[in-house]
Amino acid sequence: MKHENLELLADFYEFTMSNGYFVKNNNDIAYFDIFFRKVPDKGGYVIVCGLEQVIDFIQNLKFDEEDISYLRNQGIFSEEYLEYLKNFKFTGDIWAIPEGTVVFPNEPLLTVKAPIVEAQLLETMLLTIINHQSLIATKTSRIVRAAKGIPVMEFGARRAHGTSAAIYGARAAIIGGACGTSCTLTAQKFNVPASGTMAHSWIQSFENEYEAFKAYAEIYPNGCTFLIDTYNTLDSGLPNAIKVFNEVLKPKGIRPAAVRIDSGDLAYLSKKVRKILDDSGYPDCKICVTNSLDEYLITSLLEQKAKVDSFGVGENLITSKSDPVFGGVYKLAALEKDGKIIPKIKISENTDKITNPSFKKVCRFYSKDTNFALADVIMLKDEKIKEDDYEIFDEHNTWKRKKLVNYYVKELQEKIFENGKLIYKSPSLSEIALYSKKDLGTIWEEVKRLNNPQKYYVDLSRNLYDLKNNMLNR
Amino acid sequence: MKHENLELLADFYEFTMSNGYFVKNNNDIAYFDIFFRKVPDKGGYVIVCGLEQVIDFIQNLKFDEEDISYLRNQGIFSEEYLEYLKNFKFTGDIWAIPEGTVVFPNEPLLTVKAPIVEAQLLETMLLTIINHQSLIATKTSRIVRAAKGIPVMEFGARRAHGTSAAIYGARAAIIGGACGTSCTLTAQKFNVPASGTMAHSWIQSFENEYEAFKAYAEIYPNGCTFLIDTYNTLDSGLPNAIKVFNEVLKPKGIRPAAVRIDSGDLAYLSKKVRKILDDSGYPDCKICVTNSLDEYLITSLLEQKAKVDSFGVGENLITSKSDPVFGGVYKLAALEKDGKIIPKIKISENTDKITNPSFKKVCRFYSKDTNFALADVIMLKDEKIKEDDYEIFDEHNTWKRKKLVNYYVKELQEKIFENGKLIYKSPSLSEIALYSKKDLGTIWEEVKRLNNPQKYYVDLSRNLYDLKNNMLNR
Repeated sequence: MKHENLELLADFYEFTMSNGYFVKNNNDIAYFDIFFRKVPDKGGYVIVCGLEQVIDFIQNLKFDEEDISYLRNQGIFSEEYLEYLKNFKFTGDIWAIPEGTVVFPNEPLLTVKAPIVEAQLLETMLLTIINHQSLIATKTSRIVRAAKGIPVMEFGARRAHGTSAAIYGARAAIIGGACGTSCTLTAQKFNVPASGTMAHSWIQSFENEYEAFKAYAEIYPNGCTFLIDTYNTLDSGLPNAIKVFNEVLKPKGIRPAAVRIDSGDLAYLSKKVRKILDDSGYPDCKICVTNSLDEYLITSLLEQKAKVDSFGVGENLITSKSDPVFGGVYKLAALEKDGKIIPKIKISENTDKITNPSFKKVCRFYSKDTNFALADVIMLKDEKIKEDDYEIFDEHNTWKRKKLVNYYVKELQEKIFENGKLIYKSPSLSEIALYSKKDLGTIWEEVKRLNNPQKYYVDLSRNLYDLKNNMLNR
Repeated sequence: MKHENLELLADFYEFTMSNGYFVKNNNDIAYFDIFFRKVPDKGGYVIVCGLEQVIDFIQNLKFDEEDISYLRNQGIFSEEYLEYLKNFKFTGDIWAIPEGTVVFPNEPLLTVKAPIVEAQLLETMLLTIINHQSLIATKTSRIVRAAKGIPVMEFGARRAHGTSAAIYGARAAIIGGACGTSCTLTAQKFNVPASGTMAHSWIQSFENEYEAFKAYAEIYPNGCTFLIDTYNTLDSGLPNAIKVFNEVLKPKGIRPAAVRIDSGDLAYLSKKVRKILDDSGYPDCKICVTNSLDEYLITSLLEQKAKVDSFGVGENLITSKSDPVFGGVYKLAALEKDGKIIPKIKISENTDKITNPSFKKVCRFYSKDTNFALADVIMLKDEKIKEDDYEIFDEHNTWKRKKLVNYYVKELQEKIFENGKLIYKSPSLSEIALYSKKDLGTIWEEVKRLNNPQKYYVDLSRNLYDLKNNMLNR
């Protein structure tokens, strides 16, 4: 089963607008920013991802005869535009914040600079990819932080919103800190560990639980993990598991890997199971728990001192159940006519929805002493930063100022495409996950708190603030 | 951009279990049921869908060299099994309830009968597809019902969980009653209307709003719809729209289609806009509203007598935001050894999680007088139903009985595959949507209520109840 081409995965209005620009001979260069306004789950930070798939999409974006003929049949597109689409190739520049980076509201995660006819066409797919993966990486990061070092595995494929949600949700989960996934395709495609144990159907398909465990241990003696809750965890599952450990594995000198508990009171059962395993000579046999876990349940289990060695997390992770919408938007920030940049702004009665105009960059200030991130400043692309001190201020309460000293600065966006040519190499998934973990290490704990996190400083430079304010006053 | 093959989109344990059955020479025929335990959003019913994509997956399911080599590299699969996978072809039978049908908890939506080695491999993909599409169709149905006949369009691609969530979420939305989608690919692929207006970027890309509307009306005079909230809906957007209606469309004798409002107080603004349009000679110009709508906001807008002719619904529909997990499961119901069916049951301390054993069917009883559905009964596959009267009873409160009379009965599942051969033709998407609307018309209003719906009767036949109870007592 193959998926179809995805070039028509765009809101229909992208095509009507693009055709409109074309017909009106609009040759302006547009600058579009992708940014989001609020962190899911009232969290303090987001892990951005999806860039590798964005690159893949843009590099392979072309329209075939079937697409053209479909659009022609709508009866509203000019033949010249359809001819243009037939030979479509992205010719612009793209800057993006690398995958796995910790980001905050209003920061341009990705900036497209391209003829407006082209740039408009990218909107839907770029948002779909980045919104989805950033959502799942961020949710996973919360769950992994709640687990306080105990490994978290992604087990959600069956509850994902369709096939690409399963595949790329699992990818994002790895970036967010999951140590493995049950999704075989993601494991294969991105070279990360596939994990899994057995389903209840395995147990049910045998005469009894003991036979089921025995057969499994004979086939897979190494890394042997039994699901022990099919009939009764303490009265049946665990005794049968230990019996098979003793009868099948012990004579071969093989240690069992783990038991999995998928129902019941996980705090209580895990402690009971731990004690019995220890007393039976299996203190090294791990306990994996699953069953609609999330960051709150994991926190509660750990507070109750549940004896858990790994968490398998499914539906609440893969759908980001408690907040399943990541609201990234694609907004026009500037037009370039004859080499001159004209900043654009979207005004709204809701002041939060007002956009930051012009061609911008985001700089992160780090303390030279601690290497912790101090603040981010969104500024005009060509702004220089003094090396010695920098005053930041709150956009909505400009009297709130703070002087940064003894810092070094990193520009967050990197250049990805130049004149349509890819000039960036995506790291491997494991590299991205490692980078993300390091990056998260530069953020204050208070910002990463699950509940009521401290708000990280994301300010506008004086130049950008003045530009925006002048535009609003006009 | 093409998606990869999806045959490895399976939890890794499907392969380890399947290999295990193979190695142990388990030639049993397994019966697996897909069912769900609770309706999302505490609603009263679910619209099942996804069957067309399930069929597509099963018909094209094969493993290529790359897949085999990946599995071989895991070091745990037998060479004979890998050889078997290389020539894999589904050889079993499948029954399913047609897409668009109204279904209820615990009903077998789909039943797979196949050698257990095969049947196990289907689990993840079947669940991923059916869970996703049934979730979105059900959510859409709620939203459409809240809209009380005012058309609802699906506008969610950018907030969908990745590409297939956008494509097939839009498909499911059409089944759930949406009259169109903004997703061009879904519209093309399934031959349904693509709808869309313009984004704020169109307006911003011109000198001013008036010029933007004028240019648009010149290019697309027919079906002209303006987004009027970019700067200020009442002070700028609407006057500019009317000016362009008068200057560009009127001289050509063309009526404008609509204006769209995407922010602000939609109840207030829609009434103001309606009045001004009417007074300006455009009582036929429609008003479309968008902005994080869902069934509750739509209910509230209509209670406030908002003047709305169509709703565009995005993120809350395409993610089923208020309840984004549809918990369909794939459970072993029976094994067939040497032609004899051996019922299987999964016991749980949580009584709701106990499964219904054996090879089953679902029958829906309709009143001959009203054609309304009276009750569903899950029964053993070979059970006959008396024509004159039938007593149903509540599984958990067996004293609650009800005699059905004057009914006709429909078996809900249809046969889809027979010995691996497809014997069912999927209807077109429009046909499914029409069928679903009719099917919903046979369900009492009380069951379809958004809040605190009446629980529809889904009972077990006496035979199935006795079988289950005997198994539990053993």
